[in-house]
Amino acid sequence: MEGGNGGHDGPRVAHGGNLADARASYGTPEAGWLDLSTGINPHPYPLPELPRDLWTALPQADAEAALIQAAADAYGAPSAATVVPAPGTQALIQLLPRVLGSDRAAVVGPTYGEYAPAWRAAGATVEAVGDLEAGLTALAGAARPALVVCNPNNPDGRTWSPDRLIDLAGTLAAHGGTVVVDEAFADVVPEVSVTHAADRPGLVVLRSFGKFFGLAGLRLGFALAPGTLARAIGDALGPWAVAGPAIALGRTALADRAWQTAMRARLASEAGALDDLLAGAGLTPAGGTSLYRLVEHADAAGWHDRLARLGIWVRAFPDRPSRLRVGLPGDERGWQRLAAALGPARTQNSA
Amino acid sequence: MEGGNGGHDGPRVAHGGNLADARASYGTPEAGWLDLSTGINPHPYPLPELPRDLWTALPQADAEAALIQAAADAYGAPSAATVVPAPGTQALIQLLPRVLGSDRAAVVGPTYGEYAPAWRAAGATVEAVGDLEAGLTALAGAARPALVVCNPNNPDGRTWSPDRLIDLAGTLAAHGGTVVVDEAFADVVPEVSVTHAADRPGLVVLRSFGKFFGLAGLRLGFALAPGTLARAIGDALGPWAVAGPAIALGRTALADRAWQTAMRARLASEAGALDDLLAGAGLTPAGGTSLYRLVEHADAAGWHDRLARLGIWVRAFPDRPSRLRVGLPGDERGWQRLAAALGPARTQNSA
Repeated sequence: MEGGNGGHDGPRVAHGGNLADARASYGTPEAGWLDLSTGINPHPYPLPELPRDLWTALPQADAEAALIQAAADAYGAPSAATVVPAPGTQALIQLLPRVLGSDRAAVVGPTYGEYAPAWRAAGATVEAVGDLEAGLTALAGAARPALVVCNPNNPDGRTWSPDRLIDLAGTLAAHGGTVVVDEAFADVVPEVSVTHAADRPGLVVLRSFGKFFGLAGLRLGFALAPGTLARAIGDALGPWAVAGPAIALGRTALADRAWQTAMRARLASEAGALDDLLAGAGLTPAGGTSLYRLVEHADAAGWHDRLARLGIWVRAFPDRPSRLRVGLPGDERGWQRLAAALGPARTQNSA
Repeated sequence: MEGGNGGHDGPRVAHGGNLADARASYGTPEAGWLDLSTGINPHPYPLPELPRDLWTALPQADAEAALIQAAADAYGAPSAATVVPAPGTQALIQLLPRVLGSDRAAVVGPTYGEYAPAWRAAGATVEAVGDLEAGLTALAGAARPALVVCNPNNPDGRTWSPDRLIDLAGTLAAHGGTVVVDEAFADVVPEVSVTHAADRPGLVVLRSFGKFFGLAGLRLGFALAPGTLARAIGDALGPWAVAGPAIALGRTALADRAWQTAMRARLASEAGALDDLLAGAGLTPAGGTSLYRLVEHADAAGWHDRLARLGIWVRAFPDRPSRLRVGLPGDERGWQRLAAALGPARTQNSA
């Protein structure tokens, strides 16, 4: 079981990042687990000293307003009124179907697994589609259609043109519908973002803080949407949705453009090094972003098992057994372990 | 505006704890604001060193399971399967009306202001009632009735017998309904709690972590409910609902019974001292808990203004202008400021 839904068992969506699964199947390796199963930046934004009152007092409205402004600036939103902070993007995925009142959703995939169950739980019918056009077809005749697109997509890194997505939002808006663009990994490909159009009817953009800033445990994400919808999302979340430390940290990190620019370059360089390493083992990546690389290989399951026996946990996809997703090692030791695991002759490393 | 719903304006429920209101009306006093407007313990649980991976990695399922077990033990829940952690009790209040499918709610009050709007937003009709019996009457004939009771109540400290609440839950369950017992302040009056019966049909208990443990910025709360309902609440929250630092801190603090026992005694003693101080100024408390005291006074508005001019922010109730709620000062200087503000001759202090 992954995901931690209150400790209750039952069918759950598979995710990367939960080492309990790794331990359950393979125990704990002597050198500890090297977790490459997520798309989370292994070089986190430096944790500042956090004043004690961020923990002790209720989150303050003026601090939250400053976070919202910092997010609006960093993401290039039309205004602060389009930005709603949440305790992680997942919290937004949980409530969006109800706030939108969707009767039918098309999810462009394969992609992040939590969209379909969230829309189904809200009573919508859900179709998995392969591209935008198929999505439009699947939504024809719906009263409140929702088209869900991850841009760039996870795990394959496919991207869609922002102009095309903005056009589609206009089309769907005319039919009472919405395009939901999940830009969880757009920090590393900012040119695909539609955040500048977040005040257009029919468009909702989701931005994750934890992935690019390497602080997934903090729980911070944002919805960007036209004012009325943004307000409805904020009302559904209720007051004090984001913790005090997350408000302060998020504000600082989002305002730090120098760190963001340098990190984009560093991740691109490391992703190139990872590609070289994987290609050397015959695992040439077929896609991805600079936060994760997607490998298609006939023996993906065998590689997953071999790597796991060496204490390296990469992401497998039960419904796509030929796929592996590999994240970036965070330090020299991690690069060396991966290089060693991918082949006895391979010790090159350009991290 | 209070509450910080995404920075959007509009009608909001009034709350204590937002000093932006104080600053907007009175500026910033030379000595800083003494915030007595909340019921949050001013003696927070000591913040431990937090390992970096609590911030960087996604919250782990095994850590969350340990938090759930610690909460089940601390609250005397029938089992871990009845316990659902959330990023603050408010997040649970937001989603409970939909999870319960309520068509009608009776809220025993006056009480915490967020219940009525949450149920209304879910499409339920809401009646404010003065006691349990009036609540049952108001709910007669409802298809999915919900009776909301804060025990002890905020701000007046009224309590209801746990046996009576458990009986009522049985009665409502037989009619497809639920009793929602908000035990946000029950840590200081544990004898009124119904957590031991949280596996009974028709009962949902809400527990706040931040108030008694003095860590409201952390955002942590729990629902306790029968397994099926607990699971539905967990599903509505989705994965990774609680931040990594909150999981770790919550687990440690909930397991620390010695701290809890000592803190209950300390708060009771300080509440007694606060009563003496208030009574000396003719503001004899009419109720409350040891985390806040409720004063009824013809000149409550005048006192609110006088105290604010001296930099002391207590809670006023716009719809009950004769009421003031006063929390505990956190240190000797706070006690002295309050004593000085309540009357020139009053410098006694037994904190």
